Amino acid sequence: MKSNSYLLPLYNRLDVSFVKGKKSVLYDEEGKDYIDFSSGVGVNSLGYCNKKVVKTIENQANKILHTSNIYQIKSQEECAKKIVELSTYDMQCFFCNSGAEANESAIKLARKYGNTAFSKPKYKIITIKNSFHGRTIATLKATAQEDKHKYFGPYPDGFVYANDIKEAISLIDDSTVAVMLELIQGEGGIFMQDIKEVKELSEILKSKKLLLIIDEVQTGVYRSGKFLISHYFKIEPNIITLAKGLATGIPIGVMMTNLKDVLKAGDHGSTFGGNHFSTTVCKEVLNVLEEYKNSGNLKKNIRYFNNCLNYFVDTYTNLFSKKTGFGFMQGIVLKDEKKLEEIIKIALKNRILVLKSGKNIIRFLPPLNISKKEMKQGFKRFENALIEIKK
Amino acid sequence: MKSNSYLLPLYNRLDVSFVKGKKSVLYDEEGKDYIDFSSGVGVNSLGYCNKKVVKTIENQANKILHTSNIYQIKSQEECAKKIVELSTYDMQCFFCNSGAEANESAIKLARKYGNTAFSKPKYKIITIKNSFHGRTIATLKATAQEDKHKYFGPYPDGFVYANDIKEAISLIDDSTVAVMLELIQGEGGIFMQDIKEVKELSEILKSKKLLLIIDEVQTGVYRSGKFLISHYFKIEPNIITLAKGLATGIPIGVMMTNLKDVLKAGDHGSTFGGNHFSTTVCKEVLNVLEEYKNSGNLKKNIRYFNNCLNYFVDTYTNLFSKKTGFGFMQGIVLKDEKKLEEIIKIALKNRILVLKSGKNIIRFLPPLNISKKEMKQGFKRFENALIEIKK
Repeated sequence: MKSNSYLLPLYNRLDVSFVKGKKSVLYDEEGKDYIDFSSGVGVNSLGYCNKKVVKTIENQANKILHTSNIYQIKSQEECAKKIVELSTYDMQCFFCNSGAEANESAIKLARKYGNTAFSKPKYKIITIKNSFHGRTIATLKATAQEDKHKYFGPYPDGFVYANDIKEAISLIDDSTVAVMLELIQGEGGIFMQDIKEVKELSEILKSKKLLLIIDEVQTGVYRSGKFLISHYFKIEPNIITLAKGLATGIPIGVMMTNLKDVLKAGDHGSTFGGNHFSTTVCKEVLNVLEEYKNSGNLKKNIRYFNNCLNYFVDTYTNLFSKKTGFGFMQGIVLKDEKKLEEIIKIALKNRILVLKSGKNIIRFLPPLNISKKEMKQGFKRFENALIEIKK
Repeated sequence: MKSNSYLLPLYNRLDVSFVKGKKSVLYDEEGKDYIDFSSGVGVNSLGYCNKKVVKTIENQANKILHTSNIYQIKSQEECAKKIVELSTYDMQCFFCNSGAEANESAIKLARKYGNTAFSKPKYKIITIKNSFHGRTIATLKATAQEDKHKYFGPYPDGFVYANDIKEAISLIDDSTVAVMLELIQGEGGIFMQDIKEVKELSEILKSKKLLLIIDEVQTGVYRSGKFLISHYFKIEPNIITLAKGLATGIPIGVMMTNLKDVLKAGDHGSTFGGNHFSTTVCKEVLNVLEEYKNSGNLKKNIRYFNNCLNYFVDTYTNLFSKKTGFGFMQGIVLKDEKKLEEIIKIALKNRILVLKSGKNIIRFLPPLNISKKEMKQGFKRFENALIEIKK
């Protein structure tokens, strides 16, 4: 950003400015096209200018955007129904505006449960090393990356960090009310938890009447190939949080739970959350994605995507050590972490957008409806970038 | 909400569901019209279906909704420029998705300043009794209403409550880094601070190099008749937060500050915050509101609104003790607080939407562009409701 900017310099922005998009292609100010393997960090689940989504936005803008939650909001109820049905869990929803707000809501719910359901109150929430749960003060403290905590204290007590699931199990004590985790860590290196270990954790928590909170802000909304990655793990969380892909670019977050009678009217709320506009768009996005999933094309496209990534790991053994992740949320691990920034910049020069994760991972989060043709073109450009780096 | 709802029962919703709106009139499922003196709790600054806003939404939906903040976002820069220019302060902006997130950002900035700018770190933020700063854990703790804090602890240390501005001044000590306040308390009874006292506080803070944080989430964006109510107080805050009225129903929040070099890249961020869609709509809303303000019609309409409220206080002396607030953010104080819920419900039956504030105040927050004709009709219906109550 220019030095005379009106924006606080909080982002290291790449030197490109997009003005429009179509499907999984973005166009910059000069009209140059870019294949998008980043989807606004998982947000643009349906890419750009999906016809049904545009139509829904136009229709709703001509009716009503927002009323307060002191009135009934039919689209909010319908959107919640769709989310709960897709989840297959017996849950209810609370709508807010971001993943951070969804995780704040989850923490509040867990704490009220811990403070009211036991003779001796419980308040500790165990989170996992390298997790990322948000940028508010409480979700930042829940984020088990202590180098990020400098400057912004005092933080709330009650978060305990485990190196892994096994340690999380061993850390459960009389004050523990919940374990909160991502099944694939998005920011922390596209690290996928072990299914058996999570299953064991889930059963132990259930036997002790403690809570399992799954942060699906990045993994949710078909990112894994199923609506929730929790489905692959065959677990029944007590609380799930969703955000990024829900409305393909309209700010929205959801905290859903099977604890239907812990929070009462007045305990929590949101001004914008669940309004006519965001929930109407969200409902349509979910309808389109559900149809796409049911057609079998999501699975087919993920398979192709997978094969392409395998090709790079197998071919460029000097650069990459392995592939990591699942579905449309994957990374390839660099042998030399110093190359990370360079590859992302040279990829950009070759008009292909990729992200980083952790210290040494190139992260791929394409729009979920990316076509085989777009992927082919994108990976061709990515390979050109790799060839350029080798020189 | 029905018992078989898919929504957590977090709101006491009135039994009405709106399906569309036009200017300051809402329509329910049966086609009945309601005059809106609530504007979605201050959100619908331009009412419903403003032509220029609808056009902007349609245009933008056909271009691009969202990209990540790792790329340049031109509309974000332009929107920030507009906000800074309207503020008249030499500031920079950070975009997020709600008032709570804006206040979280303000608290983080103040704390980093306190932790880095002094030889002995400072961290305490003084807030004012009956304030409301949000529903996240840190902003809830900043909210000086201790009855709302039950259940959700442990909270972060570092918030100190003052009964009023004078006490806030007396509570400043070696650990204090900032005072945070609303100039009119929105949820806490439409209570307006004394201009001289705030001015004195502002000067004391400045002399000690401490920060004044003004929460303009509800008072900002012309709600008071000027872009910021801070302008009436002739103060120069270090941090201002905005949200509700910024984009007339699209979720958005802003934290703006004259501390341009405290937060560095990576210290804070938002996935959705500042995206193409929300900032393009926000910019257009601000353009329309600026023009409206400059035409003199905002002032004229506030004068008419004021006269109407005065009429009720002067006429219904059995019900009301006084008027409170400023601009298009006002309340009338009930002599008998037990009548509050009843009046809101009977008003609804008479198809006029009003809000509550505190325990005994009927709050009026109409769309800022409400017409004289709509106000006339609305206050007529409100009087019918009062006559019904007297019976």
